[in-house]
Amino acid sequence: MKSSVLLVECADRPGLVHAISGTLFRHGLNVVGNQEFVDRPSARFYMRTEFDGPIDAPALLADIRTALPPDADVRLSRLEPKRIVVLASKEHHCLADVLVRNLFREFNAEVVAVAANHDLLAPLTRKFDIPFHLVPSTDRSREAHEAELLGVVGRHEPDFVVLAKYMRVLSPEFVRRFPARIVNIHHSFLPAFAGARPYHQAFERGVKVIGATAHYVTPELDAGPIIEQEITRVSHRDTVEDLVRKGKDLERMVLSRALRMHLQNRVLTYGNRTVVFE
Amino acid sequence: MKSSVLLVECADRPGLVHAISGTLFRHGLNVVGNQEFVDRPSARFYMRTEFDGPIDAPALLADIRTALPPDADVRLSRLEPKRIVVLASKEHHCLADVLVRNLFREFNAEVVAVAANHDLLAPLTRKFDIPFHLVPSTDRSREAHEAELLGVVGRHEPDFVVLAKYMRVLSPEFVRRFPARIVNIHHSFLPAFAGARPYHQAFERGVKVIGATAHYVTPELDAGPIIEQEITRVSHRDTVEDLVRKGKDLERMVLSRALRMHLQNRVLTYGNRTVVFE
Amino acid sequence: MKSSVLLVECADRPGLVHAISGTLFRHGLNVVGNQEFVDRPSARFYMRTEFDGPIDAPALLADIRTALPPDADVRLSRLEPKRIVVLASKEHHCLADVLVRNLFREFNAEVVAVAANHDLLAPLTRKFDIPFHLVPSTDRSREAHEAELLGVVGRHEPDFVVLAKYMRVLSPEFVRRFPARIVNIHHSFLPAFAGARPYHQAFERGVKVIGATAHYVTPELDAGPIIEQEITRVSHRDTVEDLVRKGKDLERMVLSRALRMHLQNRVLTYGNRTVVFE
Amino acid sequence: MKSSVLLVECADRPGLVHAISGTLFRHGLNVVGNQEFVDRPSARFYMRTEFDGPIDAPALLADIRTALPPDADVRLSRLEPKRIVVLASKEHHCLADVLVRNLFREFNAEVVAVAANHDLLAPLTRKFDIPFHLVPSTDRSREAHEAELLGVVGRHEPDFVVLAKYMRVLSPEFVRRFPARIVNIHHSFLPAFAGARPYHQAFERGVKVIGATAHYVTPELDAGPIIEQEITRVSHRDTVEDLVRKGKDLERMVLSRALRMHLQNRVLTYGNRTVVFE
Repeated sequence: MKSSVLLVECADRPGLVHAISGTLFRHGLNVVGNQEFVDRPSARFYMRTEFDGPIDAPALLADIRTALPPDADVRLSRLEPKRIVVLASKEHHCLADVLVRNLFREFNAEVVAVAANHDLLAPLTRKFDIPFHLVPSTDRSREAHEAELLGVVGRHEPDFVVLAKYMRVLSPEFVRRFPARIVNIHHSFLPAFAGARPYHQAFERGVKVIGATAHYVTPELDAGPIIEQEITRVSHRDTVEDLVRKGKDLERMVLSRALRMHLQNRVLTYGNRTVVFE
Repeated sequence: MKSSVLLVECADRPGLVHAISGTLFRHGLNVVGNQEFVDRPSARFYMRTEFDGPIDAPALLADIRTALPPDADVRLSRLEPKRIVVLASKEHHCLADVLVRNLFREFNAEVVAVAANHDLLAPLTRKFDIPFHLVPSTDRSREAHEAELLGVVGRHEPDFVVLAKYMRVLSPEFVRRFPARIVNIHHSFLPAFAGARPYHQAFERGVKVIGATAHYVTPELDAGPIIEQEITRVSHRDTVEDLVRKGKDLERMVLSRALRMHLQNRVLTYGNRTVVFE
Repeated sequence: MKSSVLLVECADRPGLVHAISGTLFRHGLNVVGNQEFVDRPSARFYMRTEFDGPIDAPALLADIRTALPPDADVRLSRLEPKRIVVLASKEHHCLADVLVRNLFREFNAEVVAVAANHDLLAPLTRKFDIPFHLVPSTDRSREAHEAELLGVVGRHEPDFVVLAKYMRVLSPEFVRRFPARIVNIHHSFLPAFAGARPYHQAFERGVKVIGATAHYVTPELDAGPIIEQEITRVSHRDTVEDLVRKGKDLERMVLSRALRMHLQNRVLTYGNRTVVFE
Repeated sequence: MKSSVLLVECADRPGLVHAISGTLFRHGLNVVGNQEFVDRPSARFYMRTEFDGPIDAPALLADIRTALPPDADVRLSRLEPKRIVVLASKEHHCLADVLVRNLFREFNAEVVAVAANHDLLAPLTRKFDIPFHLVPSTDRSREAHEAELLGVVGRHEPDFVVLAKYMRVLSPEFVRRFPARIVNIHHSFLPAFAGARPYHQAFERGVKVIGATAHYVTPELDAGPIIEQEITRVSHRDTVEDLVRKGKDLERMVLSRALRMHLQNRVLTYGNRTVVFE
């Protein structure tokens, strides 16, 4: 018997938790996790409830909606494995981490394909019996490349797309096809060092801490809602190569944490921020 | 018998450690700490040596210089307590921390005065028997304010100036009077959120980690060489007020670590970066 | 208008949040914070609710109790400043931190007295206009010392006692007088290095990380419920003195975090564990 | 042209760095990294020097030894990839991490074989074209199991053995065959929670931080010299399963950092402690 997750966002008012928990109780559902949050500046209410038990989805949704303000955004879903397509380029560390975790079912997901603009990671991907698609980006227009990429990705009907050091900027058109459904790992502590070569930027600035950021991709580069960040200390002794090496360990850790949260329906976006119900 | 510190910067070449350690050895000095660093991109050599024993400073310096390339920057100093003036404004946490550590001689320094543009911290300062100077900034020009401030600071003949949440931008003219001799604590993880209201900026951006940065003040705002940084995790549950509160604990920790390093002659700047010989 | 806090512990069953939130709602109270937790192994339910508004305490408690299982432990209290007595010995860092935060009302508390078995910290305490009691421990029996200490502490009628590096073991009799009302800071990452000279123990063991632990004092030494812990990295270069110095910064940070949580009624103990509703 | 590493341990005395750097200079060698450390309590000197250039090893060693106290322990070695055998059991996360890093040559090593007492990880190992040896431990004596294991391991002539969550205690006889040549990852912050089921122990104790420790294996269980440790925060909300999951990410990170240091000849043991020249 699978679990279900209810996500609610609406204007805050007294009695919301009462109303929702009462409705679930009357439907005979066993709540196994319950988290709510009120963003005071905007007076918005956010709630995630995970529960076991057979559900009559239309009736439950109707009852929940009746109990809430009319503007409420209510999402009810089974906690079933999501289909994900991974986009990569030349660096193996994030892709390998996702492939290993996928093999051992650590995520609530199934990696259905990998696509990359270089073929370096094809042997790694194939070790894990995952289809690998080479979609070259050199000697062709960005439009042509993206059109082919969109075809390849779309064919696998993914619920989500993961950029595992994809290293290319996706066009706003591509991004809008997957709203809040593309997760990227950026190799800096955003908003510091957005854009290209963040470790070089960090080295030049002489920072004593470097970081990595997992975020949803929006049309604006490296500006989407942040899901997770982590940092590690560095010193003057660290060369750019050291920063890159230390950063890689951060990147895969941050990406895997973000994916785990995201794939369990634990992340809600509001404005450019996220609620992460850990 | 006080310790001495030798700081060296020069073009790198084989045999530098050999040459310096040999010179100290021939002068009968007992090295108690020795750290060197070569910045490969610029091929510059940096070294800090701390040693005990009576020194003939001119003779030692002459011998050290003879052993090094002609461009060598050599600084020899006793590890004696430095005189510091602290500038503050309304927030007490960094100033209180510096005053307590000063009282118990945790720094290699003596706080000789506190100056502030508000009088809120006068009672705290006077508890510790340190002169407090009110230099108001309202209803007068920045030039007039700085002129008075410079007079007050200068009268105490400080070796260093510490900005303990001073919250005002010093003019380039002021800054140039104390090259690499003003340490500031900025309440963000620079270069993210430079300028005003960094915690509000951090809240708006929805970051999952906040930080604080101690740096040398240069004419360009929040852009000087970084001495120390530290971070702490935050979540969507943290309001701006929570960020401010958590950040304050970071700020005083980062400032005290930076001051400790700085006051033991453990920090060398090169370009806009620092070597910190911990 | 002060806030109130309701703490509930009882056997878990469906509908508890519903029942409690409904009761508060019917009493016209405005919930400003609400956190619950179910310990699955023991099937116990824990909840903290903070709310504003005038309360009829007996009526509210009666209604809450009616809504809960008969074994429920229900505590209702105003969020008023607590009276705390601090016990210290020779080390200043934790005491100074508490005194500064007390001066600026950072805790929901008032430090009403400091007692110590040495007089080194009397001048510091008096700077902050807090009564200082010297209760010598040398050349007398532990019983005689504790009897005097208990008299001194009791005279101030504290809600809580804080051991700010008190460095002496309190007898079980003393401890039982203040159940879950004494907070201690231990200078190690418990349960590692319980007992005497933890930094020496850590140095001998060659650990790469050291820590500090704030916990409730129980009759068994260093074994009470842990409220907060934090760590910092160390290396072979750190001497015992370095560990002590780095540890002190940890100790005061951990102690102040624990006190803040404790003094806002955010900590519940269960068995030897704590729920900390941040 | 491969790099070489010189490791020196001897009684401390003035002029040692001078003597060693002079000898290398006279041999025409280009030092690319140089770190020394004096353990003051024992007055022992430790140094690691990495250099490029063709060496006449016997002549260089003789000259170095002449320059040092007679008790000096001098080790000179090429920085060549080491042969390692990995022992595992049922958990995949550390083994997978080592196999991926081995595939992409992130360590200065070659994994020549994997041996395990269960066959669950055989498919994973074979994906990476590494020989997998099943050495069952059930229904047979420890002596018989170890004898077979020793045969399997020995056949591959490893420089080092890595216990990647091997979960069995090796006999002192086995351990003595590989002095300071077996690296283990223990899933706690040693010395806390040595022995079996450390996450269960940590849960019972109610700690707020968990850790992992990489150490050299000695005949005494979980008591060998520590190479690396790391921790992560946990709360009352974390079940034992959560601790295990979070801990796994720590374990593989700590193990890979320790292996990297160890395989670049950056770790010296002294007593039960390590010098790690990062």
